[in-house]
Amino acid sequence: MFHHSSQLQFEVKVDKPNPVFAKHLQQAIGGIEGEIRVAMQYFFQAMGARGDAKYRDMLMMTATEELSHIEFLGHAVALNLEGAPTSMQDEAAKDPIVNAIMGGMNPRHILSSGLSAMPVNSNGVPFDMSHVYATGNLGADMLANATAEAGGRVLASRLYNMTDDQGMKDMLSFLIARDTMHQQQWLAVIEELGGMEAQLPIPNSTPQEHEATAHSYYFLNTSLDEATPEGRWTSGPSLDGRSEFSVVEKIEPQGQKPSLGKARPDSAAQTEQM
Amino acid sequence: MFHHSSQLQFEVKVDKPNPVFAKHLQQAIGGIEGEIRVAMQYFFQAMGARGDAKYRDMLMMTATEELSHIEFLGHAVALNLEGAPTSMQDEAAKDPIVNAIMGGMNPRHILSSGLSAMPVNSNGVPFDMSHVYATGNLGADMLANATAEAGGRVLASRLYNMTDDQGMKDMLSFLIARDTMHQQQWLAVIEELGGMEAQLPIPNSTPQEHEATAHSYYFLNTSLDEATPEGRWTSGPSLDGRSEFSVVEKIEPQGQKPSLGKARPDSAAQTEQM
Amino acid sequence: MFHHSSQLQFEVKVDKPNPVFAKHLQQAIGGIEGEIRVAMQYFFQAMGARGDAKYRDMLMMTATEELSHIEFLGHAVALNLEGAPTSMQDEAAKDPIVNAIMGGMNPRHILSSGLSAMPVNSNGVPFDMSHVYATGNLGADMLANATAEAGGRVLASRLYNMTDDQGMKDMLSFLIARDTMHQQQWLAVIEELGGMEAQLPIPNSTPQEHEATAHSYYFLNTSLDEATPEGRWTSGPSLDGRSEFSVVEKIEPQGQKPSLGKARPDSAAQTEQM
Amino acid sequence: MFHHSSQLQFEVKVDKPNPVFAKHLQQAIGGIEGEIRVAMQYFFQAMGARGDAKYRDMLMMTATEELSHIEFLGHAVALNLEGAPTSMQDEAAKDPIVNAIMGGMNPRHILSSGLSAMPVNSNGVPFDMSHVYATGNLGADMLANATAEAGGRVLASRLYNMTDDQGMKDMLSFLIARDTMHQQQWLAVIEELGGMEAQLPIPNSTPQEHEATAHSYYFLNTSLDEATPEGRWTSGPSLDGRSEFSVVEKIEPQGQKPSLGKARPDSAAQTEQM
Amino acid sequence: MFHHSSQLQFEVKVDKPNPVFAKHLQQAIGGIEGEIRVAMQYFFQAMGARGDAKYRDMLMMTATEELSHIEFLGHAVALNLEGAPTSMQDEAAKDPIVNAIMGGMNPRHILSSGLSAMPVNSNGVPFDMSHVYATGNLGADMLANATAEAGGRVLASRLYNMTDDQGMKDMLSFLIARDTMHQQQWLAVIEELGGMEAQLPIPNSTPQEHEATAHSYYFLNTSLDEATPEGRWTSGPSLDGRSEFSVVEKIEPQGQKPSLGKARPDSAAQTEQM
Amino acid sequence: MFHHSSQLQFEVKVDKPNPVFAKHLQQAIGGIEGEIRVAMQYFFQAMGARGDAKYRDMLMMTATEELSHIEFLGHAVALNLEGAPTSMQDEAAKDPIVNAIMGGMNPRHILSSGLSAMPVNSNGVPFDMSHVYATGNLGADMLANATAEAGGRVLASRLYNMTDDQGMKDMLSFLIARDTMHQQQWLAVIEELGGMEAQLPIPNSTPQEHEATAHSYYFLNTSLDEATPEGRWTSGPSLDGRSEFSVVEKIEPQGQKPSLGKARPDSAAQTEQM
Repeated sequence: MFHHSSQLQFEVKVDKPNPVFAKHLQQAIGGIEGEIRVAMQYFFQAMGARGDAKYRDMLMMTATEELSHIEFLGHAVALNLEGAPTSMQDEAAKDPIVNAIMGGMNPRHILSSGLSAMPVNSNGVPFDMSHVYATGNLGADMLANATAEAGGRVLASRLYNMTDDQGMKDMLSFLIARDTMHQQQWLAVIEELGGMEAQLPIPNSTPQEHEATAHSYYFLNTSLDEATPEGRWTSGPSLDGRSEFSVVEKIEPQGQKPSLGKARPDSAAQTEQM
Repeated sequence: MFHHSSQLQFEVKVDKPNPVFAKHLQQAIGGIEGEIRVAMQYFFQAMGARGDAKYRDMLMMTATEELSHIEFLGHAVALNLEGAPTSMQDEAAKDPIVNAIMGGMNPRHILSSGLSAMPVNSNGVPFDMSHVYATGNLGADMLANATAEAGGRVLASRLYNMTDDQGMKDMLSFLIARDTMHQQQWLAVIEELGGMEAQLPIPNSTPQEHEATAHSYYFLNTSLDEATPEGRWTSGPSLDGRSEFSVVEKIEPQGQKPSLGKARPDSAAQTEQM
Repeated sequence: MFHHSSQLQFEVKVDKPNPVFAKHLQQAIGGIEGEIRVAMQYFFQAMGARGDAKYRDMLMMTATEELSHIEFLGHAVALNLEGAPTSMQDEAAKDPIVNAIMGGMNPRHILSSGLSAMPVNSNGVPFDMSHVYATGNLGADMLANATAEAGGRVLASRLYNMTDDQGMKDMLSFLIARDTMHQQQWLAVIEELGGMEAQLPIPNSTPQEHEATAHSYYFLNTSLDEATPEGRWTSGPSLDGRSEFSVVEKIEPQGQKPSLGKARPDSAAQTEQM
Repeated sequence: MFHHSSQLQFEVKVDKPNPVFAKHLQQAIGGIEGEIRVAMQYFFQAMGARGDAKYRDMLMMTATEELSHIEFLGHAVALNLEGAPTSMQDEAAKDPIVNAIMGGMNPRHILSSGLSAMPVNSNGVPFDMSHVYATGNLGADMLANATAEAGGRVLASRLYNMTDDQGMKDMLSFLIARDTMHQQQWLAVIEELGGMEAQLPIPNSTPQEHEATAHSYYFLNTSLDEATPEGRWTSGPSLDGRSEFSVVEKIEPQGQKPSLGKARPDSAAQTEQM
Repeated sequence: MFHHSSQLQFEVKVDKPNPVFAKHLQQAIGGIEGEIRVAMQYFFQAMGARGDAKYRDMLMMTATEELSHIEFLGHAVALNLEGAPTSMQDEAAKDPIVNAIMGGMNPRHILSSGLSAMPVNSNGVPFDMSHVYATGNLGADMLANATAEAGGRVLASRLYNMTDDQGMKDMLSFLIARDTMHQQQWLAVIEELGGMEAQLPIPNSTPQEHEATAHSYYFLNTSLDEATPEGRWTSGPSLDGRSEFSVVEKIEPQGQKPSLGKARPDSAAQTEQM
Repeated sequence: MFHHSSQLQFEVKVDKPNPVFAKHLQQAIGGIEGEIRVAMQYFFQAMGARGDAKYRDMLMMTATEELSHIEFLGHAVALNLEGAPTSMQDEAAKDPIVNAIMGGMNPRHILSSGLSAMPVNSNGVPFDMSHVYATGNLGADMLANATAEAGGRVLASRLYNMTDDQGMKDMLSFLIARDTMHQQQWLAVIEELGGMEAQLPIPNSTPQEHEATAHSYYFLNTSLDEATPEGRWTSGPSLDGRSEFSVVEKIEPQGQKPSLGKARPDSAAQTEQM
């Protein structure tokens, strides 16, 4: 069950409202790297968690934190929209800077939301829940979460670089910090469970006899003219400790040339296909 | 530049065509765990790769392999649709098994594709390219790729469990194997670059002064009644080697109660809001 | 800021797990009539609320309640998936009832989520945030919320009719009750602000001189052969108390026949259009 | 059956073509507040209408009117695109105003439509039909329609404020007027049917015994630190006349702590979850 | 301006309501091959038509006809849903045929629309307007329209084959006939304008000097092991009459190996990329 | 099976990087007129091809070529983003030209991709695979392909007109040329199979008795006030050689006035509908 308290998790100050930056900030709310995504991803993972209950609790606690991040970012967007131009009709509109703002901000911040945040990304594309990755497999989910937080910290860093508003820098600095923790938090689950060697390959419960292991440890060079890029993945022990990496230099087809024969008479193909 | 040769990477045999399984297999083509996703994800990462060129080459080589996976899976779907019922009009349609097939298969396999594969998932939802994660950050991309392959191997394992067709089991067994390799391949890049300690937090180029480091290493308990779930993430050295994990037991708001004041007269709010 | 406590808002019991009903229940989570929608809609409206702060508080409190509804519904979906068939490979699969289940359930409940809830509707289509209606206009938002709750109670009533599982009926009965309250809660805001007469037309702040009032109060019959359907909307005082309803029996065009002339030479039209 | 006549419902004049305003106007065509939405919503409601046929007729008549609104708005977009810059290659492109236009207009107005209207919103996101709300319940549909028209009139008012082109102001003034009527028209159906007291809760056909009425009339305060916002919804008779409003000050969980136990061995979870 | 009359363009009779066939029929309403698509495509093409006004008129007339097709198909869906099972709670639900229907029909026909048509396809995916192709180029649009009608007639033929209800066969037979006409109608425009030789390549207004004509007439064999498939496209005069077809047997790269160098220090890449 | 070689199919040079043009170029990658679409469309058509195998081979060869087009366009986008402004914090940001660039470029080119190509269109909307048209009918597919290439060449011509960068003009000139060939290539299949007379109506395998041929060859005038636009489609032999074109001047309804009667008591409609 969820509860709410009235103050924001982090203070939001905007010294110089900037409606174009408001558009950019939306990526941190409704982008695939944003907070709606992680809030919902951890929430659905928690609801589907099977096994040791502590992972469920951990997921739900951080899901709850991410909801609070949406909240202060939403306030930041609204504050950046304070005083935005909403009209082309006065003299000011002939100012090229106003023109650039009217053209550069998200038009729906004026037309649809009345100068407040929306659950969309910086292109105005609404977030869709297909990005909530929750597989029922703890290892896959932990990697998905670390990925989401890596994307989130990359985004927060780019937003930090983009603005010179001190209040916004402070807020983004807080987000960068929390993303640091969250990246490690999810990877720490993998470490606690024995690390990559024990957890890979995911799912580690797939019986060996379900796997064509002759194909499990070679890097396949599909290029006609490039040498294989050598690295940790081309030789040495595999990360799961079960084998050695190797290389297949030139892909050799193992299958047939596909053919489907003629079309069925009742399939509404052209007569010539039958 | 891409090239094609006529045989499939892996042989596709279907002993007992099953149109409902054809629907399930679509998840491996057009699902978020599927092959279109990884093919396009590695392709776009390769096109945007900056830094050591060998990662670009590696990405492009595996992107190319994944295109070949789409190809044999597409053939597998078509073969599973051979002989599918396309009509309710004969006596057979009163057979409950035919009824269940007509209700259980993807109707668009009859209506839209004429008994062949589509770029959709097992619900018939078309794949959309928002799932192509390519950030320009090598670490974030490697985690995203390991995530995609973990999801892919979970899916292939579930499809393997679902079918009793030997040809399909063989094909899925091959996919399980390649996903094993690909999971490790991407994580091996991180290991080669010094492992998690060197690569975390992602991006590792964000200057420390951009980060509110007081908030970087604590697990935040947002629950009102649950004890903090203890683990690798609550104490001991952080995975990036820069600090120690700790716990904040009860979230303390640091921000204001948000308030936006009155609506602007020209904002088409209700008069009562102004 | 959000918080969480460990128990569900309402007890979830499933006497006879039913994986097809799990698919139906998804509509109440990820459908346009579902709980993600209202949780996010009230949350974004709260973040954008201007004017009397009590409406902001009210919105946030109910947003928080709706998050708790997602949570118990998510548990209900998972419990309905307990024991679901995940394989066609044993003898049981030849049982037509198992066949109908395998064909009738959401395949991604097996393949993607590992037998737990997803943020999708009963067709497996992911929820997308374009359905979060938050206009910055209190009146428009209150109507949107009453609409959402009306849709929600219609859905809950249909789900109630569909199942004969007592635990599920109890849970749905609770949802029906809360939707009763929420419908009235939002409409009560309008009543408190003077009712429809004071609040219509929305926005009530649009100056009269911005409106071609000659066209504001007639019902337009666009049919060539049907009489105007008479009712409260064809005569008597308008609901905003500003005028009388009337009828325009036959639509008369007031505009020109549109014409765009020739295509520009540089517009990549066909030569014949230029 | 539909018919067409050659003149527009309302005259469209554009004194000063403005390609950035053309982008904004798209919201009124392909936005969720736009005309495609209401045309299709009323059309599908009409096709599904059961009960007194006059509501079906009314819906179809207004659906038809809305199609005519799409038509004149589409012409308005095209006229605003007359003379738009389509090239960066001449000297004019160095003019910051041309630059701002090229950056601020919808690029697909040049690239995809050849300077004419598209069924997209002001972000260029195509309209999707999930926004066509048609429930088969007359009360829910009437609220949905009033909501759509409230959103539409808010939008038209904002577009009116944005432009200083007299022809565009006249056209928007007409839309504002028709939205006034349409808001009231749908709410008048509810009034004719006995008003909110008779129509609430929607659906009013749900038997009382299907509802946990103990939970039907209290406002739930889910905040840890905010007092309940008092208003029409916290005391006094409920709007459906069946009960009295009350308040539950602190949410008390009624359910269990959810637990799903261990993962099934065949579910491709990690071994540690089993 | 649009008008409506009360009778359907074609009579709809359903002898044996079939809720699973109702699901299939949805493809003809909300599928990419369906009537919403063509109605809106011709409407938007008409609104953007430049050049000889008769093409605009023709487009608008057929757009209007397609709206009438949506109307009778919508009625057909509703009639197929008459008497559909909406409950699992009675004894009938144990009947495998009822089970198959409950699993095989679109659940939203019960839950969301109350047994009537929706603007979705046979998978329940809502139609989205990105499929409205309207380029501003008459030739491209005519091909797009012929394509849409070809897809439509393929679909109608498959639906015809699927059902044994005489009323549905009659209705589909009418649709097959109209699609015959519409295919030819659009291609007849091309013939009237001089046929493919005059109209190709589209756009025929692109100056020859904008085209690298050395690459305009060869078929490129990108296969490593397949002979070029010989046909009308490998030799003989090109269809535009400007040249001769030829073959390039082996693709020769003309470009560089791409390289982007190092990442910018401010781009939030990993340090190792800089 | 696919292979890759290291050089681009065509050389990509960008003399003056232009981040706004990078946004425009995205339409050629991820737009409905773009290269992902045709690559995937031909690939899926090839996988579903039945009948003479040479069409399958031809489709696969050109699918492969289109993958190479994505590759060099992706490089072109990245090169146009070299040196793009990513920050508002220095003095340069006060320059109106920098402002216009920051407002006019795709923000996700900075925030999400780190200055490289994305699988999105020029509005930032991700490509979705519903645009991959593959019907299993050779004629319908050939028309769909010619349509796609017509749209592609229109787009390439508009992009050519838009830029004054010689390297970009050269690349687009190559694309214009290949689109010329591809348009004709697909239409040449129709010509080889006997031309439109033999191939129309599509599908040409639909038995005549499935078609209400009385409705197959007339143009229907649905306008109340416009004369029928005369042309090749109103008289003379039909393009399929089976009949003569004619005109129906005024649409006459052939169907009933639709009526669905009362709502079912268990359908959660309003009581008044029952």
